[in-house]
Amino acid sequence: MQSFDLVVIGSGPAGQRGAVQAAKLGKRVAIIERRADMGGVCINSGTIPSKTLREAVLDLSGLRQRSLYGVSHRGKEEVTVQDLFYRTQAVMTREREVVRAQLQRNGIKLLGGTGSFTGPHELAVQDGDSVQKVQAERVLIAVGTRPGLPAGLTVDHERVLTSDDILSLPRLPRTMTVVGAGIIGVEYATIFAALGVEVTLMDKRTEMLEMVDRELVDALTVQARQMNVTLRLGEEVAKLEMGGAAGVIVGMKSGKRHATDMVLVSAGRQGMTDGLALDRAGLAADDRGRIAVGPHYQTAVPHIYAAGDVIGFPALASTSAEQGRLAACDMFGVPAHSVPELFPFGIYAIPEIAWVGRHEADLTREGVPFETGVARYEEIARGHILGDPSGMLKLVFHLETQKILGVWVMGTQATELVHIGQAVMSLGGNLDYFVSTVFNYPTLAECYKVAALDGYNKLRDLSRVVNSQPAPAPVPGTTS
Amino acid sequence: MQSFDLVVIGSGPAGQRGAVQAAKLGKRVAIIERRADMGGVCINSGTIPSKTLREAVLDLSGLRQRSLYGVSHRGKEEVTVQDLFYRTQAVMTREREVVRAQLQRNGIKLLGGTGSFTGPHELAVQDGDSVQKVQAERVLIAVGTRPGLPAGLTVDHERVLTSDDILSLPRLPRTMTVVGAGIIGVEYATIFAALGVEVTLMDKRTEMLEMVDRELVDALTVQARQMNVTLRLGEEVAKLEMGGAAGVIVGMKSGKRHATDMVLVSAGRQGMTDGLALDRAGLAADDRGRIAVGPHYQTAVPHIYAAGDVIGFPALASTSAEQGRLAACDMFGVPAHSVPELFPFGIYAIPEIAWVGRHEADLTREGVPFETGVARYEEIARGHILGDPSGMLKLVFHLETQKILGVWVMGTQATELVHIGQAVMSLGGNLDYFVSTVFNYPTLAECYKVAALDGYNKLRDLSRVVNSQPAPAPVPGTTS
Repeated sequence: MQSFDLVVIGSGPAGQRGAVQAAKLGKRVAIIERRADMGGVCINSGTIPSKTLREAVLDLSGLRQRSLYGVSHRGKEEVTVQDLFYRTQAVMTREREVVRAQLQRNGIKLLGGTGSFTGPHELAVQDGDSVQKVQAERVLIAVGTRPGLPAGLTVDHERVLTSDDILSLPRLPRTMTVVGAGIIGVEYATIFAALGVEVTLMDKRTEMLEMVDRELVDALTVQARQMNVTLRLGEEVAKLEMGGAAGVIVGMKSGKRHATDMVLVSAGRQGMTDGLALDRAGLAADDRGRIAVGPHYQTAVPHIYAAGDVIGFPALASTSAEQGRLAACDMFGVPAHSVPELFPFGIYAIPEIAWVGRHEADLTREGVPFETGVARYEEIARGHILGDPSGMLKLVFHLETQKILGVWVMGTQATELVHIGQAVMSLGGNLDYFVSTVFNYPTLAECYKVAALDGYNKLRDLSRVVNSQPAPAPVPGTTS
Repeated sequence: MQSFDLVVIGSGPAGQRGAVQAAKLGKRVAIIERRADMGGVCINSGTIPSKTLREAVLDLSGLRQRSLYGVSHRGKEEVTVQDLFYRTQAVMTREREVVRAQLQRNGIKLLGGTGSFTGPHELAVQDGDSVQKVQAERVLIAVGTRPGLPAGLTVDHERVLTSDDILSLPRLPRTMTVVGAGIIGVEYATIFAALGVEVTLMDKRTEMLEMVDRELVDALTVQARQMNVTLRLGEEVAKLEMGGAAGVIVGMKSGKRHATDMVLVSAGRQGMTDGLALDRAGLAADDRGRIAVGPHYQTAVPHIYAAGDVIGFPALASTSAEQGRLAACDMFGVPAHSVPELFPFGIYAIPEIAWVGRHEADLTREGVPFETGVARYEEIARGHILGDPSGMLKLVFHLETQKILGVWVMGTQATELVHIGQAVMSLGGNLDYFVSTVFNYPTLAECYKVAALDGYNKLRDLSRVVNSQPAPAPVPGTTS
């Protein structure tokens, strides 16, 4: 039996990064992957396909151009499913190659097949009829998730789909009902709406994207409605009835019935732990297939770690990769740290949303006094040049120290822009940094300066009223 | 006669920001503007029109899409001048309103007309037949520049143009010769080339864009040639002969003759100081109309300051605005500082170029030991999704301290991306910051991490050979 210092189950971002980190530390590492293709959901059915689709939609729908040249402008007259996925396979193939090359370069043994525990330190890898056993000093579970299905719903991959079916989308529907308004649901709802599909977005929860700043969610809601998205929050699907030749009737618990061409179910995701025989390792998953871990991604069984989507929130490629790295460092006693409060988050909806740092509601709950400064893309030359006047950037800063507590961005390039704020937060800068910095003109980055000046003006007003005296001299550089 | 604490001549970025800063300090400020429209060259014929044109070209030429959907894809079949400038007037109008509103809000007196000195503290403002005199305790000259013309060349605004004529471009030529390969020349040459115009770019200098890192210039050169730009460096125009019905013959000093539909002259810019009667204030301009200033933008006459394009390099909207602010602070004894080494620079060519910090050649000359780390967009998922595999990002860092000395970016969103590096440099971060930071996936910002890892690998190789020992443990997090 082959023996390894670390056996990783799953080659998505968490598994891959954990394996590479351990290999860099001189460990003998194997990675078990049941798919023919490396990279997990991230490359093969999730992040990469959806982000490539999104970019194609922005181009082909003419949405980008419409705001620039008027409503009548449309990119390609009839956008087909083939157009939309033209790029996707090429990008996926390339990303898989990157992963494979990286694993090879680092001398990581690739075990193709489905892994399961046969004991705390022993795994079986089943590939068709052949089974191979391996010994593992340590194990990293990075098996990821699959779409969850609410009780009573079934998927036929034709009219009722999950996000796993996106790449084999049979056709572009005229109307679509998205069940579940989490990150994935909102991303697909807005992407299809941008293509002109009439989308209904349903969720049994009464709030959408609870982790996101309310101001951004409100603005997103308004923009989604402008793209013809119907929101049905607090509404639960009771059953789906197939129509005759085509279409689906969505029956809701409230008694409403609604006809739609296609249903996309994105009602949470389920950890792919059911085939792992966790019990033989002394572990168990929760009812959503997820594995509980401590701060260093260690499970209840000390030599077994878990990272990535299988441990739950935030389930992003970027954070999963970091978890994999930290897990590998911890299990081999190498000090490594990370600052999770400064991890950036991105939602690739249309419009894009990104943030780093704290949510206003949490700060209020904790009694941290803060103020905000807001800039709208319409105040910025670049916003007009790009034809995206509805974007915005909000700085949340400490009322007394002016330390930046959070950065929230919605609009073109939000997921990129947030990294400027992240750097300033990480390196201890405060509002002053943005006021005194020169930004390229015209760029969206100028939003940081405008938002900081907005924040300063509020502080000035406050000090004016508090002191009942003339306002203090403005910070040199305040130009608004 | 009206009297002011500060009279500013010119309402471009430098004048506007200087005036606002002085007003915020409680000063009585007037601004003299000869044009009917606020905002100077920046809004009315330079930055804003060219950047809006650039965006329209990227959209309408189908260049963005071509890389995504293959060479045959083209946006709009026949792109007209009207299409190209559809957005420009709207953006310009809006930017002018922003300036006007800002001046009003700050109680700045607007004096419409042409300003000139009648004494060191006295200016005449001529508007048609009426002349108004004003008293100025201090003066800020921010008159900007106009296109310079090499001796012997004349402009007919039809076949021989300067950048001032772009907004009234009569038609899209089939071939164009751009005389002058400075920033403006390179921007327009690549923008028109992207539209399918056969461009010849000439300069008497043998090097293009000397302020830019050679690696980027080389890459830009190759990409420009791929867009069918012919480069003629070390080649000076002797004369332009008008053809019969159409076209121009460009005669070069080397004896070459070359036929072209249209000539765009962008051979440096001339300070607009000739009507100012500088001598009456005890000042003089150089042969290019520029005014010499000290580190605080003070001229030889202590109460007169100059800022913006009229003082020469770098002549960017962003830096000009900052100069105006600093000049106003200095003249009224308010401490204000700025870190010019950390000003970002942007060239809105196709592809875009941006940088902050030091040029390798200067560091080499000064004997500062440095190393570089490079990331190419093709190594990054986002580069593939965007269809821009040719972009790149280079970190220049100190060999011993790993302090970031410079950041150089070429490709999509370069002018935005550079601000992440700027923040890290400003706040004292080094290579470690990029290695240990989590970036949103997939974003172009990940280039920072890949470049930092590339840099670390070089350091590791160096230490391996120096010590002739096994390499030190890698930094946790190195994944390449």
